[in-house]
Amino acid sequence: MDISGIRHINEIAQNGPFAPEKVTFKGHIGNSGKILSSIHEAIVKTGLKDGMTISFHHHFRNGDYIVNMVLDEIAKMGIRNLTVAASSLASCHAPMIEHIKSGVVTHIETSGMRGELAEQVSRGLMEFPVVFRSHGGRAAAIARGELHIDVAFLGAPSCDPMGNANGYNRDEENATMCGSLGYAKVDAQYADKVVIITDHVVPYPNTPFGIPAVQVDYIVPVENIGDPAGIMSGATRYTKNPKELLIAKTAAKVIENSGCFYDGFSMQMGSGGASLATARFLREKMEADHIHAHFALGGITGQIVEMHEAGLIDKILDVQSFDLVAANSLKNNRFHTQIDGCFYAGYDDGGAAVNALDFVVLSALEIDTDFNVNVLTGSDGVIRGAIGGHPDTAAGASMSVVVGPLTRGRIPTIVKKVNTVVTPGTVVDVVVTEQGVAVNPRRRDLIEKLTAAGIMLTDIETLRLRAEKIVGEPDPIKYLDRIVGVVLYRDNTVIDVIHQVDESET
Amino acid sequence: MDISGIRHINEIAQNGPFAPEKVTFKGHIGNSGKILSSIHEAIVKTGLKDGMTISFHHHFRNGDYIVNMVLDEIAKMGIRNLTVAASSLASCHAPMIEHIKSGVVTHIETSGMRGELAEQVSRGLMEFPVVFRSHGGRAAAIARGELHIDVAFLGAPSCDPMGNANGYNRDEENATMCGSLGYAKVDAQYADKVVIITDHVVPYPNTPFGIPAVQVDYIVPVENIGDPAGIMSGATRYTKNPKELLIAKTAAKVIENSGCFYDGFSMQMGSGGASLATARFLREKMEADHIHAHFALGGITGQIVEMHEAGLIDKILDVQSFDLVAANSLKNNRFHTQIDGCFYAGYDDGGAAVNALDFVVLSALEIDTDFNVNVLTGSDGVIRGAIGGHPDTAAGASMSVVVGPLTRGRIPTIVKKVNTVVTPGTVVDVVVTEQGVAVNPRRRDLIEKLTAAGIMLTDIETLRLRAEKIVGEPDPIKYLDRIVGVVLYRDNTVIDVIHQVDESET
Repeated sequence: MDISGIRHINEIAQNGPFAPEKVTFKGHIGNSGKILSSIHEAIVKTGLKDGMTISFHHHFRNGDYIVNMVLDEIAKMGIRNLTVAASSLASCHAPMIEHIKSGVVTHIETSGMRGELAEQVSRGLMEFPVVFRSHGGRAAAIARGELHIDVAFLGAPSCDPMGNANGYNRDEENATMCGSLGYAKVDAQYADKVVIITDHVVPYPNTPFGIPAVQVDYIVPVENIGDPAGIMSGATRYTKNPKELLIAKTAAKVIENSGCFYDGFSMQMGSGGASLATARFLREKMEADHIHAHFALGGITGQIVEMHEAGLIDKILDVQSFDLVAANSLKNNRFHTQIDGCFYAGYDDGGAAVNALDFVVLSALEIDTDFNVNVLTGSDGVIRGAIGGHPDTAAGASMSVVVGPLTRGRIPTIVKKVNTVVTPGTVVDVVVTEQGVAVNPRRRDLIEKLTAAGIMLTDIETLRLRAEKIVGEPDPIKYLDRIVGVVLYRDNTVIDVIHQVDESET
Repeated sequence: MDISGIRHINEIAQNGPFAPEKVTFKGHIGNSGKILSSIHEAIVKTGLKDGMTISFHHHFRNGDYIVNMVLDEIAKMGIRNLTVAASSLASCHAPMIEHIKSGVVTHIETSGMRGELAEQVSRGLMEFPVVFRSHGGRAAAIARGELHIDVAFLGAPSCDPMGNANGYNRDEENATMCGSLGYAKVDAQYADKVVIITDHVVPYPNTPFGIPAVQVDYIVPVENIGDPAGIMSGATRYTKNPKELLIAKTAAKVIENSGCFYDGFSMQMGSGGASLATARFLREKMEADHIHAHFALGGITGQIVEMHEAGLIDKILDVQSFDLVAANSLKNNRFHTQIDGCFYAGYDDGGAAVNALDFVVLSALEIDTDFNVNVLTGSDGVIRGAIGGHPDTAAGASMSVVVGPLTRGRIPTIVKKVNTVVTPGTVVDVVVTEQGVAVNPRRRDLIEKLTAAGIMLTDIETLRLRAEKIVGEPDPIKYLDRIVGVVLYRDNTVIDVIHQVDESET
C-alpha cells in the first residue's frame, strides 16, 4: 500500500486549507466551455495530427453529413495519413474518394461500404486493405484497445451545453432524429477526444442521455447534421413480394417448431422484406397461442415496437433504430432501452445480449454449401454491403435462420463457395428459401424437431443444384492478387480477404 | 498506421475460414457462467491477494450486510493487508474493527464513518490515516486511476444472469431496494474485477439497468443483502422543530431573492430537517409565482419526487435515493434518471452536474468565521460524519447556502476555527441560522441583492459571538501529534488532517 503521497500532510495542514476559486458557471443556460464555433476549432483543440485515427458512427445512414463535413475541413487544414474508423459507411460518403486520392485518408476500418467508394475500393483505390469488422468485433476491438480512436466525431440530434447527447430531441417534435446512438456510445466511451456535432443544443440536462457529458470534450453546433430523408424513413413497409412472403411463412413455421418459440422467448429480426414478413407471421402465432417474447434485440423496426406496445414483447434492447417509429419509441417507451455495441455483441464478454437470443433471422447475399454466408460482396466481387451484427447474432443465438430467395435475377444465392466468408457455416443453423429449407447437419436436434413437425427438409446441395438449374453456374469472378479488404470475424481474427476485381479484357 | 497484423492474411485465407464453435447458452433463463455459489468462490475467482484494494458502495446505508459478509470471508481465507475503498461507511460496519486489529484491513478510504469504527479510528486504531474523499473526489480519483480498485464487491437488489444490476426489483414489489446505484456505477466501470452480490437474480435483460452486464465478472446470490429497515425509511418526514422551521423560512427567503430563483432554475437540497423544510417553503413560493425548476440533483428525497410529479421540477438526476419514495420514483418516472458519481460531481470534468446548479442547501456540524465548514468530526474531535457531496456542490453551485442552528445543546455551530476543514470558506456563500444570516464578504453581489430585498444580514463573527454568549467558548480539544485521518478536497489535494484525540487525564 503506497501512502507516500500523504507523508507530507502535516506541512500542508499547517499551511492552512487549500483555497480554490469558486466555479460560477450556470451550465444549463450558458456555455460550459465545451461549445466551439466550428469544426475547424474542434480539430485544432483535439490536437488531431497526421497518422491519427478518427471515428464516426453510421446512425445517420445514407443521410449523414458528418463524415464529409469533417474530412473536408481536415483536408483544408493539411492533416494527412488518417485512419477512418467508421461503424459503417454509405453511398453518401463517395466524397471520401478524393481524400483518399490526396492522402488525407490512407486507411479505413468499417462494417461495410456501398456506392462509388465501395466500387473504387474494390478496384484498388487504397494502398492498404480496408478492414471490415462486425459490430460486436468493432466494439470489442475498441474496448480492448486493439482499435484505438484518437478523436471521435459523433453527430447527435441533441446535446446539452455540458455534452449529454442523444439520438432524438425532446424540444422540437419534427427535428432530425436517429433514435439509438448505440455504436457511437462505444466510441464516446473509449476515444481519447470526443467531439459532438449537433443541430440542437438543448438545455442541461438532456436526460435520459445516450452519451453522457463526462465522455464529451467538445460540442460543435452546425446547421444540419444530415438529410432527414436519408437518415430514416417514416416506417418500414411490409413486403408484397410473393416469394418473400413464402420464405417468411416457411421461416415462421421453422421457428415455431424449433424449440426456440416458447412463452418468454427472445429474438432478433432484420429489416429486410422477408425478415419483416417473418415477424408478422410469428406475431399471428404468438397471438393465437398466447405466447409472448421477453425481449427483442438489435436494429429495431416499427414492427417490433408495435408488438411491444401490444404487450407481445416485454422489452426492447436497441443498438440501432431502423425507422422513425423505432426512434420515437426509444424516446417514449420506458422499456425500450438504448444499448451500446459492447452490450449488444461484444465478443469478449459473456454478458453480450446476442448470447441470450433464442433465434435470429438474417439475410444473405450468398450462402454456400458449407453454410458460410456472404453479406459483403456482390456476385461480381465488388463490395456492396456490410457485416453488421450478422456473425455476432448468428454465433450468439441458439438458432440462426438465414432467409433468402434461391436466385436474384440471374444470380444464384446458394453457391458452391461464397465470394467472401462473413459468417462461418459453423454458426449458421437453418437456410430458408422459397424452394426449400436446409438445416446445417451439425444441428441434428433441429433436423429431428422440424422433421417431427412435418416440415419437409432438403439439403443445401440440393438447393444449390436447383439454383444452378434456374440460372446456370455463374462464371468465376476474376481477381487480381492484390488484397483490397480484410474481413475479420467477431473475435477480430481474419476470416477472409477480398481481392481486387480483375477487369482486364483478357 | 500499423497494419503488421494483417500482413499474413494470404496464408490465413488459404487455410480457409476460421471455424469457431457456436455458443448455445440461453442467457435469459440459465446461468451465463458468471453466477457463483458463494462469496468464497468469488474471492477465489477474482484472484484477490494480500495488499489489494477492494471497494464497496454505501447505498444500503446502515442496513448494509455486504461489507461485513465479504470481510468475514476474506479473513477466513487468510488474505491480509487490504485497502477498503468504500464510498462511505456506517455504524453497522463496526465488525471491521476486528479485521483491522488482525491485519486483514490496513487502510481505509471513504467519504465518512460513524459509530464504534469511527470512535476507534479517532482513538488511533489504524497505523495509517484513513483517507476521506468527497463523492466527486472519489469518482474522479477512480476515473483517473489515482484510486485503483482491484475488486469491487457491489450489493444489488436485482441482477440478471449476465450481470445487469439495479437498485430495485421489478419482479417483486416488496423486495429490498435502494434506488440509485450512482456511486457503485463508478466502481463497476473502473474496477479490475466486479462482483455483484444480490438477493434477486431476475430474468435477462434487467433493463433499464444501473450497472451494465459488460462491467460485471461474477454474480453471487445470497439470502439477504441488507436490513430493509436500515437501508431506507418509507418517506422522509417533515420537521416540526420551530428552530429548524425558522432557519428554513429564512433560507427560502434568501434563495428567493438571490437571483438564483427564476423560472427554470436548478437545485440540490439535503435530507436534513432544515433542508427539507426549506424545500417546502420554496415549493409554496414556486406555486404562488408560477416558477418551476428545470432539474433537481443529488441525494433525492420523496419531497423532490412529489414536486416532480406535481410538475414543479422537470427532471431529477439521482446519484443516491434517500427514501423509498425516491427509489420507487427512479423505478417508475421516466425523467428521474440514475446518474453516476462522475456525472454528479467528478471534478476533472466541466460536464459534472454540480457545476450546473443554481443553488445548493447544505448542513454543517461546524462553520467558522472564515466560512470553512466541517461535516466530519464532532466537537470532541471524534469522527462522526461524512464529506458526501458537500464540497462538490458548494464549489459547483452558483450559490451555496449552509443552514444550521447557532448551537446544538451546549455546542456552538459557529466557531473561530472548525476542527476539520471539509469545505473551504472560499466556496461557501451564505450561512443561515435561526439568529441571523451571514453572507461571505466575497459575494458582494449577494449582499447587495439580499439587502435590497430587505433581508437583514449580519456578519459571521457576530453570529459566533452570539453562540459564545449562549454556550460559552468551548475548551479546545486536546489532540495527539498522530494523524488518524487525511481529508482531501474534491480535487484530491489534502485540505486538512484529523489528529488522534488525546484522552489522557492530564
